[in-house]
Amino acid sequence: MSETNKTPFINYNWLLKTDSARRLYHEFAEKQPIIDYHCHLDPKAIADDKKFSDLGELMLGGDHYKWRAMRSFGIDEKFITGDASFREKFRAYATMLPYAIGNPLFAWTALELKRYFGIDKTLNRDNADEIFDKCSEMLQDDAFSTKSLIQMSNVVALCTTDDPLDSLEYHEKIDASGFETKVLPAFRPDKAVNIHKSGFVDYIAKTGVHNYSELKSYLSSRLDFFASHGCRLSDHGLDYVPFRTGNASAVFEKVMCGGKATDEETEIYMTDLLLFCAEEYAKRGWVMQLHFGPMRNNSTRMFEQVGPDTGFDSISDTMPAIKLCKLLDSLDNGNMLPKTILYSLSGLDNQKLAALMGSFQRGPVRSKIQLGAGWWFNDTKDGMEAQLKCLANHGILGCFVGMLTDSRSFISYPRHEYFRRIFCDLLGSWIENGEYPEDAEILKEITEGVCCKNALNYFNF
Amino acid sequence: MSETNKTPFINYNWLLKTDSARRLYHEFAEKQPIIDYHCHLDPKAIADDKKFSDLGELMLGGDHYKWRAMRSFGIDEKFITGDASFREKFRAYATMLPYAIGNPLFAWTALELKRYFGIDKTLNRDNADEIFDKCSEMLQDDAFSTKSLIQMSNVVALCTTDDPLDSLEYHEKIDASGFETKVLPAFRPDKAVNIHKSGFVDYIAKTGVHNYSELKSYLSSRLDFFASHGCRLSDHGLDYVPFRTGNASAVFEKVMCGGKATDEETEIYMTDLLLFCAEEYAKRGWVMQLHFGPMRNNSTRMFEQVGPDTGFDSISDTMPAIKLCKLLDSLDNGNMLPKTILYSLSGLDNQKLAALMGSFQRGPVRSKIQLGAGWWFNDTKDGMEAQLKCLANHGILGCFVGMLTDSRSFISYPRHEYFRRIFCDLLGSWIENGEYPEDAEILKEITEGVCCKNALNYFNF
Amino acid sequence: MSETNKTPFINYNWLLKTDSARRLYHEFAEKQPIIDYHCHLDPKAIADDKKFSDLGELMLGGDHYKWRAMRSFGIDEKFITGDASFREKFRAYATMLPYAIGNPLFAWTALELKRYFGIDKTLNRDNADEIFDKCSEMLQDDAFSTKSLIQMSNVVALCTTDDPLDSLEYHEKIDASGFETKVLPAFRPDKAVNIHKSGFVDYIAKTGVHNYSELKSYLSSRLDFFASHGCRLSDHGLDYVPFRTGNASAVFEKVMCGGKATDEETEIYMTDLLLFCAEEYAKRGWVMQLHFGPMRNNSTRMFEQVGPDTGFDSISDTMPAIKLCKLLDSLDNGNMLPKTILYSLSGLDNQKLAALMGSFQRGPVRSKIQLGAGWWFNDTKDGMEAQLKCLANHGILGCFVGMLTDSRSFISYPRHEYFRRIFCDLLGSWIENGEYPEDAEILKEITEGVCCKNALNYFNF
Repeated sequence: MSETNKTPFINYNWLLKTDSARRLYHEFAEKQPIIDYHCHLDPKAIADDKKFSDLGELMLGGDHYKWRAMRSFGIDEKFITGDASFREKFRAYATMLPYAIGNPLFAWTALELKRYFGIDKTLNRDNADEIFDKCSEMLQDDAFSTKSLIQMSNVVALCTTDDPLDSLEYHEKIDASGFETKVLPAFRPDKAVNIHKSGFVDYIAKTGVHNYSELKSYLSSRLDFFASHGCRLSDHGLDYVPFRTGNASAVFEKVMCGGKATDEETEIYMTDLLLFCAEEYAKRGWVMQLHFGPMRNNSTRMFEQVGPDTGFDSISDTMPAIKLCKLLDSLDNGNMLPKTILYSLSGLDNQKLAALMGSFQRGPVRSKIQLGAGWWFNDTKDGMEAQLKCLANHGILGCFVGMLTDSRSFISYPRHEYFRRIFCDLLGSWIENGEYPEDAEILKEITEGVCCKNALNYFNF
Repeated sequence: MSETNKTPFINYNWLLKTDSARRLYHEFAEKQPIIDYHCHLDPKAIADDKKFSDLGELMLGGDHYKWRAMRSFGIDEKFITGDASFREKFRAYATMLPYAIGNPLFAWTALELKRYFGIDKTLNRDNADEIFDKCSEMLQDDAFSTKSLIQMSNVVALCTTDDPLDSLEYHEKIDASGFETKVLPAFRPDKAVNIHKSGFVDYIAKTGVHNYSELKSYLSSRLDFFASHGCRLSDHGLDYVPFRTGNASAVFEKVMCGGKATDEETEIYMTDLLLFCAEEYAKRGWVMQLHFGPMRNNSTRMFEQVGPDTGFDSISDTMPAIKLCKLLDSLDNGNMLPKTILYSLSGLDNQKLAALMGSFQRGPVRSKIQLGAGWWFNDTKDGMEAQLKCLANHGILGCFVGMLTDSRSFISYPRHEYFRRIFCDLLGSWIENGEYPEDAEILKEITEGVCCKNALNYFNF
Repeated sequence: MSETNKTPFINYNWLLKTDSARRLYHEFAEKQPIIDYHCHLDPKAIADDKKFSDLGELMLGGDHYKWRAMRSFGIDEKFITGDASFREKFRAYATMLPYAIGNPLFAWTALELKRYFGIDKTLNRDNADEIFDKCSEMLQDDAFSTKSLIQMSNVVALCTTDDPLDSLEYHEKIDASGFETKVLPAFRPDKAVNIHKSGFVDYIAKTGVHNYSELKSYLSSRLDFFASHGCRLSDHGLDYVPFRTGNASAVFEKVMCGGKATDEETEIYMTDLLLFCAEEYAKRGWVMQLHFGPMRNNSTRMFEQVGPDTGFDSISDTMPAIKLCKLLDSLDNGNMLPKTILYSLSGLDNQKLAALMGSFQRGPVRSKIQLGAGWWFNDTKDGMEAQLKCLANHGILGCFVGMLTDSRSFISYPRHEYFRRIFCDLLGSWIENGEYPEDAEILKEITEGVCCKNALNYFNF
């Protein structure tokens, strides 16, 4: 066996197996700027142009993908979310990483170290301290502030994920600072929709509304406020796709008066408010994102110990076709179906969603309904390829709005590079296999479209 | 990047990556005639030896696969099912097509133009008019009548899909004309089974029966009539696989008296009539096809505008294993299970169906229960490969009855070529990888079997 | 086409497409001994060091995989489980085999003939008698007794599957004989769990217990007895994953008094006893295996004719995520979750299980919860690759405990070779494609780990 690290792991033609793939990537894909239309970056950290204390904070401070992998390797929680130092945590992560062969973390980590810090070595327990020290030193430089990292990544626009109550003060501050990257809010009213979750009553209290009708008016005014800050898309995180008709206002009253909604009542309320929101998005020409299918906080013990969004979620038993069809039809029938992107957490749903959306496509928008890029557990090479092939089989791949990071990390943009290489490699394999002719003009349009331009047009940034 | 269309897109070894694949295809597969045992061709159009006014009518007149793709590209309905001319519609289709990279329409269209019209160019907006004109002119010739197209395609037998009430007059006319291709009817009693759908009462009225018992007798007589016209197989299109026991006769009476069947009653009636039909097929040595899992007419708005079967269907939430098992067992237990082909619209069901059918295989027929070729949304290169691999893993691939077009188009036969190339390429990849020895004799038998001969034996044409 | 069998079908680099794969296999994988931690070998046959009358008995005497394939080929039951001679049955099997292209039986049979009998020919109807005679003669030699076959296969430890009532006398006898392979029992209390199946009352009667509390005590004492014989793991075969709380003791009383448990009561009882067992395993540091999702004895006719476990089972409609999550959480919350291996019979569940187990990983064990190797219908090259890729994407592949035979056959150990070649080929493809660096040291550790050493550590043999 050859020695480690003689040639860089990530080289010029990384993941690009055919000449066609290489041409597509280097001539078209890699030159495109990044539109990151869905992420979870903290706008305050951008507004403050925050810098990071060390590599551990930057890489491991909030990344539950990495935490899960560390737990799977048997690492003690102390070195994951506990009180160990970031250096110790980074060492623990580095010890695990080589065993994560075939896991996207392996590629992601290598890309993060290579693209931001110029490190060609593949991280392991032996070089962990050396890499930690070198990168942590670099992070002290202004060239590694949040804004610098975003600019270094050639991001022209990004959308954060924001509650309707958000003042958007940090978005205003970023805008006022003349930052060249558009940092736009996205409207995510989950707290107003999730009537069955704890905190609902307190949340509604903050809005100051007295009944369901006022809540709708309130949300409508917030939509206008978000629109005035450049918002062009919304997002709904749903355990499942709801569709049940009934008296949503009565359910709202019941819960606000201290009652508990039954499962049926919850679904009635969620359906009604989701339909209301969707119509509001349609009126404004916005895009609606529907993310569904997670099962959250699976471990009661760990939820009590470390709280939500810490790597204890998974994929629920979804059967979305029938209800999602009714939801879309209900909107489409009234000509109030907004542009919509469908994401299921289960890779199994790809084909059903891709087939279903064909029933609701309507010009003049190209692929008004989109099959979202591989989400969360599907944000892997295999998951991306499956999503791309499914979309190609059942829709028009050339109209796909492409990749997003869905990330809380300021160094996750190389995931766009990862996607682009995988996308170009897939196209290259089709060309090589005679499934598509090597027609430079249209391949340029398709590649640039999927990597960037389709998103620009679709979201109307 | 090279220029467009320098070499033909579909060349001699198209899709055949290995030498083994090329030998299997050119020595065995491509020489076999076509048995198209399930299609939706209009027998009148064959009997009349119809010719087509232009390429638009031929390619876009009834193909909802193409309509869906056009809608996904944002094309106005006017240019899809509306009052635009076929030339305009063809232009719109040609404008969309290059973006449908990875979609079977891309390969299908190229094959249609190449095999029937000798056109090597890949269709796009720039050459659309030129291709339209050239092909439309050719279509005026008798060599492009329906019968000529079928003969040109080397089809030795095809089965249409026919209602029990059908007079089969066109089948008789075709037979009397001495047409060399056997054009046989297939028995599809969906209208008698679907007691929950509008039109049921009117349909039963046409049969002249007065009760459920008479309906069964009537259907039995129609089965004999179909058999006397060479019918060897039936087809059932089911939203889901039903299995519920109860008083079907009472449900029939209720509905005929103006009542509405509950979901449970519907399932009782469907189960009972399906079991009756299956036993009748078994008595006659026929094959029963079960197609299940669609969700139809998803868009109320478009259903009202353009009606059914226009591209607004998709894949339902199927869970077929348990009920299908009971259905097959019920028949098998009475030794009345006919030869059966299972098709689910969801590619997810492949493994369950392939495993299930193993419980009901019974000699002397080879693979009495068959896993149907990739259907509708699975009629793609990926879908065909998945079906073939699944069948190979769980059954005897060498006994597979192979491909069908399921098409309304007279130029869809190259889909058999597409299937055969994909099939030979898969076998070639196994041989190349050492998973199967290069034994010419048995590979010839397997290849010729799957491409044609197994169907001849299985259906007993 | 070349002639048959010019070069051996299974050659030195069989299935290993890349240089990296070849190095990993030949330098690391093939040298590892076999740990077969889950099989269905008959301990009496080992203790007696049984020899086989002929090749038919050895290969076809109890292998329902082969029986299914023969039925799918249309072979009469007489030549499968009937009164034909083993020579006749072997001929029938040989006649079918070449058509099973792409079926694991093709590779398994070739491996069995090659590794134990040195036969390079691929079995078919023409050479069936010659091969039958040659191998049957070899089987008369002591070198082909059960113990010899196990030793020849380099098995250092194997776990049988045993009922709690088993006396383990044969395990004792094997141990006393100084047999170099550890032959350990595994605890499978299905008969005590399956309160809804016939035989439950009689089974409980044999235990001598008078109530549910005594049953638990009894099982606990049997666990100690098994532990004293080196048992380190258990196994549960479940139609579905149960989770329902209620009064299990009352259900037990009802059934023991001649009542019939409702579906809900059955689930209550199963849940309670499963939780009890799991906690007992946790106390002892054992591993719990959960196998779920089969649909059994599908054909009533054939069940009456040939009984259970004869090839008439298939894959049920599973939706395991929600209930399995509750089951694991219930145990984890009390800190009583044992090391657990999850196996679903549906390949569709891979992703859900792999994502779910991430919520319950806990050190210091590496990958305390494991995604089991491709089971039964997934024990194919495609199924193994899917399981490996899924585990790699969502967990730490380097901590996987690897392959098992799950077999009743004494010549099924080459399935470990099959798995190892497929595993190394997958790693090789990643290395070749630049997805993982060619770092010999860590690849050695990963390969040896997955092939053998991880199981040694995990089960603590």
